[in-house]
This record gives sequence, structure tokens and C-alpha cells, in this order.
Amino acid sequence: MIPVLLVLNAGSSSLKFQVFEFGAAEDPRRVFRGLFEGLGNAPRLLIRDSAGTIVAEETLEAPAFGHEAALLHVAAWLRAHGQGLELAAVGHRVVHGGRAYDRPVRVDAQVLEALERLVPLAPLHQPHNLAPVRILRRRFPDLPQVACFDTAFHRAQPEIAQLFAVPHAMTERGVRRYGFHGLSYAHIASVLAEYDPALASGRVVVAHLGNGASLCALERGRSIATTMGFSALDGLPMGTRCGSLDAGVVFYMLRDMGLGPEEAERMLYTQSGLLGVSGLSNDMRRLRSLAATDPDARRAIDLFVYRIGREFGSLVAALGGLDALIFTGGIGENDVATRAEVLRGAAWAGFELDEAANACGGPRVTRGRGPAAWVVPADEEVMIARGTREVLGQVQRQPAL
Amino acid sequence: MIPVLLVLNAGSSSLKFQVFEFGAAEDPRRVFRGLFEGLGNAPRLLIRDSAGTIVAEETLEAPAFGHEAALLHVAAWLRAHGQGLELAAVGHRVVHGGRAYDRPVRVDAQVLEALERLVPLAPLHQPHNLAPVRILRRRFPDLPQVACFDTAFHRAQPEIAQLFAVPHAMTERGVRRYGFHGLSYAHIASVLAEYDPALASGRVVVAHLGNGASLCALERGRSIATTMGFSALDGLPMGTRCGSLDAGVVFYMLRDMGLGPEEAERMLYTQSGLLGVSGLSNDMRRLRSLAATDPDARRAIDLFVYRIGREFGSLVAALGGLDALIFTGGIGENDVATRAEVLRGAAWAGFELDEAANACGGPRVTRGRGPAAWVVPADEEVMIARGTREVLGQVQRQPAL
Repeated sequence: MIPVLLVLNAGSSSLKFQVFEFGAAEDPRRVFRGLFEGLGNAPRLLIRDSAGTIVAEETLEAPAFGHEAALLHVAAWLRAHGQGLELAAVGHRVVHGGRAYDRPVRVDAQVLEALERLVPLAPLHQPHNLAPVRILRRRFPDLPQVACFDTAFHRAQPEIAQLFAVPHAMTERGVRRYGFHGLSYAHIASVLAEYDPALASGRVVVAHLGNGASLCALERGRSIATTMGFSALDGLPMGTRCGSLDAGVVFYMLRDMGLGPEEAERMLYTQSGLLGVSGLSNDMRRLRSLAATDPDARRAIDLFVYRIGREFGSLVAALGGLDALIFTGGIGENDVATRAEVLRGAAWAGFELDEAANACGGPRVTRGRGPAAWVVPADEEVMIARGTREVLGQVQRQPAL
Repeated sequence: MIPVLLVLNAGSSSLKFQVFEFGAAEDPRRVFRGLFEGLGNAPRLLIRDSAGTIVAEETLEAPAFGHEAALLHVAAWLRAHGQGLELAAVGHRVVHGGRAYDRPVRVDAQVLEALERLVPLAPLHQPHNLAPVRILRRRFPDLPQVACFDTAFHRAQPEIAQLFAVPHAMTERGVRRYGFHGLSYAHIASVLAEYDPALASGRVVVAHLGNGASLCALERGRSIATTMGFSALDGLPMGTRCGSLDAGVVFYMLRDMGLGPEEAERMLYTQSGLLGVSGLSNDMRRLRSLAATDPDARRAIDLFVYRIGREFGSLVAALGGLDALIFTGGIGENDVATRAEVLRGAAWAGFELDEAANACGGPRVTRGRGPAAWVVPADEEVMIARGTREVLGQVQRQPAL
């Protein structure tokens, strides 16, 4: 049996996972990527190997098949696969690490309790992230588990960047700008030097543009500011989320639209953003295909690009200048037109778009002597694998801790 | 009797007013500024002439003395003053003009009804602004009244700058970025050429910094973007208001802090901003006097300056570059240290602070070849006087309208 590291990203009805060989190599080696969808309803499982070839595709006729069954199914599939793979450790993507966790942490009863206390800060994500942790603790009590946080990378920010102008008691209670997508930004920071050695010590804005979207300002590879705040709602408009919203709008929704808080929250999380503005789709690919003839699709795209431009300016101010802009995430990596529109809108910062390079994905999509823009693939999972290995390596080296 | 124009700015327990001679001169000539405070409790009245000399100072021992009594009192005082002044017209500062009103409007029954329908968009301000309109219509039915709006100047913005990424039906219902302080920005735009003729056709960020605070991007003297959104809460932190806040914080206040919507709203309007962060004061002068020794005062100031810097960057992006920054409002005109800190933080935009000029209020407070920064006194009232005269002049010239 070969020991492997399982990286988990659990949602309400889905379980994304990747499998890494847990060897001594510099970087964990990815061997499988898998996705369970429709959990609790009509579960479907798809697993691909590192070359992208489908190695498993199943539909399970079991409506009661939930996260627990899915986890056991994955463990069994690994054991049965080839010469057999054995779970040696699990790394979890956990959206919220609060103020305390500024790096990955091995999960014990005390840590799990602390993470559960953060549920009110991310009620739509944290419970789903923690469910598999509890299940695995019960079913495999000796399996080491590590939590890696979307917030952790931003804890190095100056205090002033993390503050809201609310009463001090609210700040102490945890009403702060946490920021998210930190695993993606940490990954970008870790590979910057491969694109241009100077960037590792420079001023870089990273645009993580996917169904969730945010920007982050990196100074010498550390986060100094980001567009997401307390929840996953703030900052850029997203596929179905509103992005920055005047707090007064929420009071208007409650008082004048007669919505309950849950209803209002659901509307801002699931019916806003690109979907809400276009009335058509949360999918940028679909909106792009419609935009030439449909003004609603065009408006949604224009708003997305405009808000990226505004938030980009805000982060350039935080950095006091700019050396590069990095595009990552599904839209950032694949939508040639969004990159072109963002760079044209930000010409004031000195960008000179290289249309040919942009059309084929760069990686560098600008020319000239101004700041450069690059396309860099996101890889949050490898950061979770690295973080998990690091935490467990430390634990093994220092058993007394 | 000399006909005069009365400019009114009515709050919940206060009535600010200014009196202009309603002559044929290019600009209305201000003759008095007055303030009624403590209406409904222990009203105090103070009136100064155009040289700043106190010409009336009264404390009225009449707890039931409210806005109506105050208006009658002012009218009587004017009639009794010198050779007698007669109200010829009234111009009102009205916070919200919605989507429809992009300029001042003469108030008739239909307009008043339309403005009352906007109360839900500015529940803490609009009712107080409209109360004197109704009172004067009843007591002086023939007195021409004009409403001048804080939102109107921003209606020229590109649509994309006015949109939130919310469902289209909400946008249609009025959930838009209206922006405020428009009378102040319109005034600045009207005097830019006196400071530098090139600015009238340039790219200018105006920082209106007072107990309320926002920034506005002017392109050729027109608003193209501003930091305030739907309500008077958004954008910069203010004396007691939170500024930009993740919508998720409101849901947290309702669900986890157990606050009702009214309580939560009151906390964000009256207990946040400089007051909330410092726990000491909403008054920048007091915070400055404490900042050397009190870290909480320092933190509140630092956050104010930091957020100005971030929003400034966002507006430079909207403008695609910058020719000048204008400071106005109580803090903008008087706080040397805030101007210096903002300009040092924005050195990336090319500012070179002129410390000596800044110390004595400029008007130009930068040197060198980069963008200039200027101090320009706010004067919203003269804009109301001009707007009122213009509307009534037009009405008189075109009685068929």
C-alpha cells in the first residue's frame, strides 16, 4: 500500500478531492482529482488521473448517500486502486480560520471546537468544510487531519487594512476584514519568481477571478490588502454574489422589500452578481457568447470589469505603486476578453496589452516597459498538500508538541 | 421691504439657514447665516451677518417650539430686521432626489409627493428635509419653494458607475449608487477654473471631508464616480458612520449579536466611524489633540486616512489618471495633518507636498510637476441659492411650463 495525502474541499452537496503522493519529494505529486456531486440526492462521482484521463465515473442510485458515504467510498476506491493507496493524512480546505489561525493547523478536539465557533462568521461555508473533519475523526480516529484556511494568508496584513470603522467592541468580537481566497494567493506568491524573479520582492495585484472573485495586493509576496472583507460577499461582483454593497441596502431589503434576513442573505449570495445583473447566467462563458446581441449580458460583463478596475486602483494605492498584475482562476486564466478589457481600462497604470500573447494565454500578456500582466494557473490544492505535509512533518519532528 | 432668498437645511432637531439677496447680480449675495438648535427641547438661535458678526442670539424657553415655530420666527426676524426683508423664495437642501431629479426643481404638490416616496431611500434625512417644505406650503402658499438635491449632481455618471450587482428588479426598484454631497461637488466644479483654468477640463478627485465624508471623481467638471452609494453610510468612515461595510456584517449583527434592524442601523449611523474606532470622539480636532499619546485616537485617524487613500486610488482608476486633488469640508479645509497624511500616502500618484503652503491652508498645497492638491472652501448654500434662482428665473421666463 502506498501512503497518500487526500485534499478535501467540501460543499453543501459536493465533495472535491485530490490525491497526492505523500513522499519525500520537494513538492507533493498529484495523482488524482475527483468530484462527488449531488450528494444526498443523486450522487455522481468522477475521478481523473494526473494526465486528465477519466479513471472512474459512477452514478450511485442511493438518495441517502451523503458526505460520510462519499468519504468511505473514496477511501475504498483508493485501497482498491492499482497496487492500493492508503490514506496517510487529510488536508481540508476550511474557509475561515478567524484571527487566531494564520497558518495550517493539525485538527484535534480543541481546534475543531475553535473552528466550530467560527461558523457564525461564514455560515454558508464553514459547516460544510468541517463536516468531513468530524466524520473522519469518528471513522478513522488515528488519521492525521490538517485544516488549511482561506483567511490565513491575509493575517499578515497591517492592522489598519483589517479594520472596519465599527465600534471597538464589534471589532474585538470578530467583525474584521478577513479576506478569502488566501490559499490561491499564497500559491501565486509561491510561484511568482518562476515568472519573473523581480516579482517576488515587488508590488503585485493578483486577480483571482472565478465564480468567486477577489483581488489581493502582494508586497514582497505577502498580502497587504484584499477586496473581500468579513464574509464571502464583499468586494468584486461574482457569479451570483453582489460584491461591495452599501449596508443601507440591507436595511432597505428588510424594511421596504419585506424580506427576512435569511431571504435577503440568500438573494445577495445566490441571485446577485453576474446572474442578477444579466438575468441570464452566472457563467462568464455564456455571457460572453450573448454579449454581442444582448445588452443585459453586456451590462453584467461591463459591471464586472468596471468594478475590477475600481478595486485594482484601490489596491495600487495600498501598494503605493505597481510592478505586475496576475490573472488567475477560471475567468482569469481562460477569458481572453476579460483580461483585455481589464488591461485596457487600467492603461493609466502603464499597461500595454499584447493582444497576440493574451489570445494564447500568455503567460505574459503585456509588452513594453510598464508593469507586466501575467496569467498564472490557480492551484489551491497543492498549497493544502504542502501545508498539510509541513504541519505533519513538524509534528513528527517535534512529537512533544 | 427687500426680497430675500432663504436657504434651508433642516435636520431632526436643527434648522440651518442662510439668507441671500435675491437681486439681479451674477451671484446671490449672502447676508446672514443662522442656526436653530435644540428644536423641540430647548431651542437656541444664532444669526451672524456676512462678516461673521453675531446679530441675533436667543434661547427660547419653549419646549414645544419646533420646526414650524422656528420657520415663523425666522420670517418674523427678517421682516423686523433693518429696513425689513421679505421672503421671496426658499431653497431647500433635500438629500435625495432619486433617479428622476438630476437638477433643482420647483416644489408643487406632485413633486412633494414624489419626494416623499423617496423617504425609504434616506429614512434618517429625507423626512426632516421635507418637513419645512410642507410647513411653508401651508403657512405661505404663494411662496415659491425649490428643492436642491445632494444626489442630483451624480446623475450624470455613466450607468455602470451607478449600478450594484444585485438582481435587476432591485435596481429597477431604486437600489442604485446615488451618491451624496452633490451640492458641495457641484460648487467645487463651478469654482475649479478660479484655481487653475486647466482643471475645469481635467481629471479631479474632490475630497469632501467633514462629519460626513465622501470622495468624488470629476471629469471635465462632471461627476463620473463617487464613494457614497445607496445611503449616507457607504464609502469613507465618517464621524459616527461606518463607511464601506461588508453586507455580511449586517447579517451577523442581526443573527449573532441579536440586534434588531433599527438598532443595527442606528449603531452604524451613530456609534461607528471615528467615534466607534476611537471610543473617544467623532471630532477630528479632539482626536488630533489626543493622538500623540492615545493609540485609540491614533488608530481612528489612521483608518480614516487609510480609507481615503484606498478610495482615492479607486477614483483615479475611474478617471484613468489624475490632474488634481481638492480638499474641502470641515476637515479638508482645516486639518493640516490629515491633508499631509493623505498626500504622503498618495505619493505614488505624483504628489509633492508643500509643507509650508499646507500649514497655512494653501490654497495650493503641493509643489512640483505632478498633480496638484488644493484647498477649496465648501459652499453648498450658494449652490442652493443659485439653483433656486435659476429654477424660478426659468419658470418666470417660461410661464407655460
